[in-house]
Amino acid sequence: MTAFTEDELVAAIRRILTGPAPGVLIGIGDDAAVVELGSHSEILTSDMLVEGIHFDRRTTSPRDLGYKAIAVNVSDVAAMGGGPRYAMASLGLPSDAEAAWVMELYGGMREAADEYAVPVVGGDTSRADRIVLSVAMTGEVPDGGAVGRSGARAGDRIVVTGVLGAAAGGLALSTADPHAIGAVLGTDWARDLLGAHLRPHARVAEGQALARAGATAMIDVSDGLAKDLGRLCRESGVGAALDLSRIPLAPALEDLAKVLPVEPLTLAMEGGEDYELLATLRPVAVEGAVAALEERFTPLSTIGEITAAPGIVSVEPDGLRRPVRAGGWDHFAS
Amino acid sequence: MTAFTEDELVAAIRRILTGPAPGVLIGIGDDAAVVELGSHSEILTSDMLVEGIHFDRRTTSPRDLGYKAIAVNVSDVAAMGGGPRYAMASLGLPSDAEAAWVMELYGGMREAADEYAVPVVGGDTSRADRIVLSVAMTGEVPDGGAVGRSGARAGDRIVVTGVLGAAAGGLALSTADPHAIGAVLGTDWARDLLGAHLRPHARVAEGQALARAGATAMIDVSDGLAKDLGRLCRESGVGAALDLSRIPLAPALEDLAKVLPVEPLTLAMEGGEDYELLATLRPVAVEGAVAALEERFTPLSTIGEITAAPGIVSVEPDGLRRPVRAGGWDHFAS
Repeated sequence: MTAFTEDELVAAIRRILTGPAPGVLIGIGDDAAVVELGSHSEILTSDMLVEGIHFDRRTTSPRDLGYKAIAVNVSDVAAMGGGPRYAMASLGLPSDAEAAWVMELYGGMREAADEYAVPVVGGDTSRADRIVLSVAMTGEVPDGGAVGRSGARAGDRIVVTGVLGAAAGGLALSTADPHAIGAVLGTDWARDLLGAHLRPHARVAEGQALARAGATAMIDVSDGLAKDLGRLCRESGVGAALDLSRIPLAPALEDLAKVLPVEPLTLAMEGGEDYELLATLRPVAVEGAVAALEERFTPLSTIGEITAAPGIVSVEPDGLRRPVRAGGWDHFAS
Repeated sequence: MTAFTEDELVAAIRRILTGPAPGVLIGIGDDAAVVELGSHSEILTSDMLVEGIHFDRRTTSPRDLGYKAIAVNVSDVAAMGGGPRYAMASLGLPSDAEAAWVMELYGGMREAADEYAVPVVGGDTSRADRIVLSVAMTGEVPDGGAVGRSGARAGDRIVVTGVLGAAAGGLALSTADPHAIGAVLGTDWARDLLGAHLRPHARVAEGQALARAGATAMIDVSDGLAKDLGRLCRESGVGAALDLSRIPLAPALEDLAKVLPVEPLTLAMEGGEDYELLATLRPVAVEGAVAALEERFTPLSTIGEITAAPGIVSVEPDGLRRPVRAGGWDHFAS
């Protein structure tokens, strides 16, 4: 990066990110971006990815990192029942970062920005000791249509989109001893897991469908099902009874468990980064929600029920209720 | 911070930041914030402050840092001719950060947020090696009323609000050998300089007045007059001829130059962080702009003229034109 001034870097980023973007009146390269307003409520979110905490520069490609930085923000918008609109990306860079690396990073952002139709309209760059990527995003949702975390009520069914544990499985694969897993890296199931870890998919249409179907509360599963369900319950002042046998596990985890000492259910409950949507619905609304997601070929599993009593329990086959450990990813745990 | 989980930190931040905020439908504590849209165009901006680059934890109080993180984003909104609406703050924290320090930081943000009526409606927290504070902000401006950097034309007058060099003078004071400046720290002029450095003021009403007065281009002076004027000229495809004798220097710099080896004009031209507004106006519009800012007791100085020829020159008393060094703060310089 020694040959780069800040202005040259911004000019280069601008070339990568600039393009036709409906509604952007002034984009990258000015003091701030100016965008047209829609007729909906606006959603604002931001996420910070830090080298050594969220990713390892030696094992994460800059293109994947850029893609993920956008996708995780889109997921937050989706978890409100909204659609993404505009993004801003602020980047802190160490002096040893290569220009090519930085361009690949923005290339990955551009890729996700195109996929989710969410133009990156501004941001900031700075020197830093380690790479820090902070993305902020706006989105929109029909007035009154946003789904928060606090609306779950006793008797609501708990549903989750897709399958869980794949991203944690991919992380386990990518950090495993190469000698132990070298033979499986070319298999379909290993690629599925690594893809889930490196290229998370945000459930935008699903979030909107769940909102329309009457979701009473919703959250994206970023830190593991146990922890994120705990957050939803706490915000709603309720508890949850889970049927652990109905939690949809990524099929590839069965293969993974044959080569690494992992437990699929634990990866789903505590692994994090799946970016599936966890929602609550009145019982009468479940069937419609399942049908709406079927149209998009996205499974929706009913995994339990909201309870008036706080805390999360699992309902065992013998009818007994056992507390569920609220473990999961915590950025501040050591 | 060892006793803090991420959720506990968020809960604590929420207590500090939450309060009556018109238009915020869902604020801190959910996946994202939801705000009402106005009938105007929206402005989006973000700025990242990194420990060791933008500030030194040993010499900057967390309250000042939080205040500044908001104010510099407001300044970007002001430089478009708009008003701030909503902010998001993402924070990366080392394990040795004290909880009290973090709360003071958010307290400072709240202080500025109240002053500029720009609620902090969301954000993110993460572990990091050194403190990183990334603020994103939305603002609004009447449709078609945003002032960018690219509209300056030959013959336009160059104007700047307030006085320049004070923030750089304050930085020089705060990093000087205490033995050399201990005797002056209690003086009014030293307090003025330190205040300009630690608590920058964003020129919101002034930016709006300049936009209404017909500013053809505008930028906030964050990296020094020479560099920011250079950016404005480059975006507009023009040059500038400056009368250096008319550049408004902070009066306290005269006092500072008696105790430290600083040159007031150099601090104004290359020092940065003044957050005054630099704008261009058709000659016929200058008088009206000066009068509009006089109503707010803010001086507006005409310091030169836009030229068709690129490059920035100073017009000397003898009529000669000499190139102006384009120095200034660069986050990527070593």
